[in-house]
Amino acid sequence: MTYCVGLRLHAGLVLLADTRTNAGVDNIARFRKLHVFERSSERAACLLTAGNLSVTQSVIARIESQIEAGRHDPSSPSILNSATLYDAALLIGEAMRDVLSRDRGAIEAQGAAADATLLFGGQRLGGELRLFQIYPAGNFIEATDDTPFLQIGEHKYGKPILDRVIRPDTTLSEAVKAVLVSMDSTLRSNLSVGMPLDLCVIRAGELKPRQLRIEADHAGYRQISDRWASSLREAFHQLPDIDV
Amino acid sequence: MTYCVGLRLHAGLVLLADTRTNAGVDNIARFRKLHVFERSSERAACLLTAGNLSVTQSVIARIESQIEAGRHDPSSPSILNSATLYDAALLIGEAMRDVLSRDRGAIEAQGAAADATLLFGGQRLGGELRLFQIYPAGNFIEATDDTPFLQIGEHKYGKPILDRVIRPDTTLSEAVKAVLVSMDSTLRSNLSVGMPLDLCVIRAGELKPRQLRIEADHAGYRQISDRWASSLREAFHQLPDIDV
Repeated sequence: MTYCVGLRLHAGLVLLADTRTNAGVDNIARFRKLHVFERSSERAACLLTAGNLSVTQSVIARIESQIEAGRHDPSSPSILNSATLYDAALLIGEAMRDVLSRDRGAIEAQGAAADATLLFGGQRLGGELRLFQIYPAGNFIEATDDTPFLQIGEHKYGKPILDRVIRPDTTLSEAVKAVLVSMDSTLRSNLSVGMPLDLCVIRAGELKPRQLRIEADHAGYRQISDRWASSLREAFHQLPDIDV
Repeated sequence: MTYCVGLRLHAGLVLLADTRTNAGVDNIARFRKLHVFERSSERAACLLTAGNLSVTQSVIARIESQIEAGRHDPSSPSILNSATLYDAALLIGEAMRDVLSRDRGAIEAQGAAADATLLFGGQRLGGELRLFQIYPAGNFIEATDDTPFLQIGEHKYGKPILDRVIRPDTTLSEAVKAVLVSMDSTLRSNLSVGMPLDLCVIRAGELKPRQLRIEADHAGYRQISDRWASSLREAFHQLPDIDV
């Protein structure tokens, strides 16, 4: 499995993915699930993937070949030259639909699951920060101030802390900590989600994705993980008793 | 859905269930999912149910009629006169199998899910504290010191805190707080789990279940829920920043 989370805040987008894939519990590998796309000073975007790896890799391959074609011929549509981010999400949804209509039958005939789900966020020059969740059917929803975060994959373990702390006006430094704590809880409770992590921050108006790969021994991450663990235990021990 | 959790600690068993059932999101009701069984000074047991309500109610009805028959004829097997708690779990598994072999086909033909899962814990005079998780096929696993807690239903939201604080030698008052915090996180993140809660504690050697129904306005629970929320936010804000 996978855990990916994206926050759409007033201050920017914060996106985090793990890197573990598994075909059964005895076949575990490491693949990047967070992909950054950039057109200098015009557009910054990030795509996070969950689900069948052959499907998501085919979707990425198609998006990249569209970008390559768009570089030579600006009229050839790609997520980096579309008029809006919404149009870019449409292109990704179309790629998903095409790959699944080609492969789903054969994959499911093998007894495997073909579904995949994506998070796609970014900003273009003159546009708003946007964050979409794209479903296997190619349709998508968009994060709003009412629901400023979207999750795909193993989303349940790490949802409570996001529900508690994420608001549209959460600062980026708080948001980075929140997604790391959310991931930390997921990593501890579910073996199918694993280090290292890929983090991407797109600050509002900056049009430049900032990326960080976090390995298991990353000092800042270890400090957050350890401090959170000890603070939780301390907070827990200070709770009042209930008589039964 | 449902969230039920059971802890098997050296000091006793702690069991907690919510009470929400739903047939679709537009048909929500309140049913007790925690059932206590007792034979004075000889046996204390507790059964928690998740899954198709018609199936779990039929299983409970069968267990109760076996107990009734066993009162008049001690040779008639029931979970209150079985030689061991293991034998009681076998009887419950058999009831599950019988109900599902009668009803599963017709339920699934309607497009509904027939599966159910149970937690069963207790102690008999001269025996150990035991806690079982019983599957739809009637087979079951048992909690051990390595894995002292079992969960059924919506188990993921509330698992991280249990992973962090529950050990076989956790005290009962800590354990009660842990299951309430685990439930609190689940309630906040998943609408299919709802108040009130049913709590049962079976202290080692006491052979007497202690029960508590916790309504939404229960002062002790509210205090735990509010203190936990504020402690988490405080702990979160004190985490070190990561530069991205």
